[in-house]
Amino acid sequence: MTETVTVAVDANGCDHGPAEVAAAAAQAAAGGTRVLLFGPAAEIGGPGPGVEVVDAPVSIAKAPEPVSAVRSTPQASIVQAARAVAEGRAHALVSGGSTGAVVAAGVLHVRRARGIHRPALAVPLPSPAGPTLLLDVGANVEARAAHLVQFAFLGAAFARSVMGVARPRVALLSNGTEPGRGTPLTLEAGAVLGQRTEELDFVGNLEATELTAGAADVVVTDGFTGNVALKALEGASQTVIGAVRDAATGSLRGRAGGLLLRGALGSFRRRIDPERTGGAYLLGLSRLAVLPHGRFGRAGYAQAIALAERGVCERVGERTYATLAAAGALRVAASEPASSVAAPS
Amino acid sequence: MTETVTVAVDANGCDHGPAEVAAAAAQAAAGGTRVLLFGPAAEIGGPGPGVEVVDAPVSIAKAPEPVSAVRSTPQASIVQAARAVAEGRAHALVSGGSTGAVVAAGVLHVRRARGIHRPALAVPLPSPAGPTLLLDVGANVEARAAHLVQFAFLGAAFARSVMGVARPRVALLSNGTEPGRGTPLTLEAGAVLGQRTEELDFVGNLEATELTAGAADVVVTDGFTGNVALKALEGASQTVIGAVRDAATGSLRGRAGGLLLRGALGSFRRRIDPERTGGAYLLGLSRLAVLPHGRFGRAGYAQAIALAERGVCERVGERTYATLAAAGALRVAASEPASSVAAPS
Repeated sequence: MTETVTVAVDANGCDHGPAEVAAAAAQAAAGGTRVLLFGPAAEIGGPGPGVEVVDAPVSIAKAPEPVSAVRSTPQASIVQAARAVAEGRAHALVSGGSTGAVVAAGVLHVRRARGIHRPALAVPLPSPAGPTLLLDVGANVEARAAHLVQFAFLGAAFARSVMGVARPRVALLSNGTEPGRGTPLTLEAGAVLGQRTEELDFVGNLEATELTAGAADVVVTDGFTGNVALKALEGASQTVIGAVRDAATGSLRGRAGGLLLRGALGSFRRRIDPERTGGAYLLGLSRLAVLPHGRFGRAGYAQAIALAERGVCERVGERTYATLAAAGALRVAASEPASSVAAPS
Repeated sequence: MTETVTVAVDANGCDHGPAEVAAAAAQAAAGGTRVLLFGPAAEIGGPGPGVEVVDAPVSIAKAPEPVSAVRSTPQASIVQAARAVAEGRAHALVSGGSTGAVVAAGVLHVRRARGIHRPALAVPLPSPAGPTLLLDVGANVEARAAHLVQFAFLGAAFARSVMGVARPRVALLSNGTEPGRGTPLTLEAGAVLGQRTEELDFVGNLEATELTAGAADVVVTDGFTGNVALKALEGASQTVIGAVRDAATGSLRGRAGGLLLRGALGSFRRRIDPERTGGAYLLGLSRLAVLPHGRFGRAGYAQAIALAERGVCERVGERTYATLAAAGALRVAASEPASSVAAPS
């Protein structure tokens, strides 16, 4: 693909301010990506060649009701960025801050891809054994079996195209590994996925203990369970890391130990650093959206823009559609009402 | 309460063998508890005064289909122990090993308490800030709002009676803290619990990041989500602790640091040691059942027996019933079919 890729980037929503996002945009532009940057022009300044600033000072990144904020604030930077993607002025969307606002803007403006029931929010879980993509982590609070089946294909296509996994192992998050374990929802989805082995390397049920153990490349669940699992992982990691830090600062002896361990622990922390993964991905829209975390700095935002560009170059959308079509897993127009917009966190 | 408490203990299912459970029983008996010990008499020997051994060499602790194993194996030690409780020969049940077999034996033989829809499996999550009781973690894979409401009362009564929390804060596990966030199930349960503030200190929604942060004493969810959350916490803790261990053994420098930190980290590990909590609890049966983990040694089993006895002395069942009755949250006989038996892990 020789055409220059254009990424619409929302400069609002970053804890470090719009100028930090502009710095990431400049970095991406230096690498050959064209960036349309939506944010407060007065704060952004001139990020340099390859970055076109669109003045959009209104931010809804902190709006308590993201869905209604998207509907009622057409001038908001995230809405303008999503519309640029919808109208073909950009190929992909990058926005940090409020997940709810990005999902709502994506669903309402970029819209679902052909044949897709629902978009899904996917997060690469950092693990020493390499990332595991968990989806849905909150684009929808409820799911039907047909949705989970599509999530499996969406996740596998993304893992192949963007994460570079040749043959991603796809698992279903459940409360036990035996085929008979699970809810009616996971049992039904598992039965369908078990018959799609030509198109998908489905490895069956996976327990949450294995989410950070490298046991699968893609793990599928409903948005409520995925959100709970993701946050449980974050909470436990923070608790244990906090206890280690306390131990390494609590006494002279502990401080000496902490200093000696710093190098080795630092390498672990870099391996599990979420900024390396670019954030979360909204899959199943007609264009890819990447959601860096609001606390990311320019490195994380630059990585998000780079991954959005890679998704465009690798034609992740077209490839997903082709695999879904081959597996007979596309939505039939009349069978499903238009997707509603939930409010993920 | 001056009557001696009798606890029925299953000696099978412990990774360290029945003699280890017998040692725990002897310890409990020395403290004044009477123990009926069901297991292979030949391996147990004579544990001493206060422990009556009932020869029950058949174990179904590793049976792949626990529900049918309970139905088809009346001579199994767990079934005999559950029947002893059901028939009034013991006041409470302690069994480690297969959660599925204990839940099935409890539901089929001990039976549900009056007015209870479903039993729930509760686990005290070890956290530096003190334990948080999470339920259901897998007695049932699905739940209705009325079940979650009862779980809240079951958990609160247990936290008061056995964990010694005067006014337990009860939360609902959800994907966001705002009142409007959640599934139809959690929203309905939250609306009911929000009106029960006289009987219950309901603090609203809680995100899974807070499960190990001491933000609530009791956290309520359905058995599938609870199982996933519990295992995600375990997996993340193991991953981070493993990385710290690797750092502290990987190089000479790291090993020296690890030695210096050992004391402080050991105190953290003792605080989060699950053996201190006695294991999991099956609440909502006519008698309390405590499930030490199969990997526990005599200390963990002795703690499980001690907590079972405390539950009996504190009349946790009667107090739960009284609070549920006052809150109008008891099951009406005709509204619900008899509880089926799921297969938790």
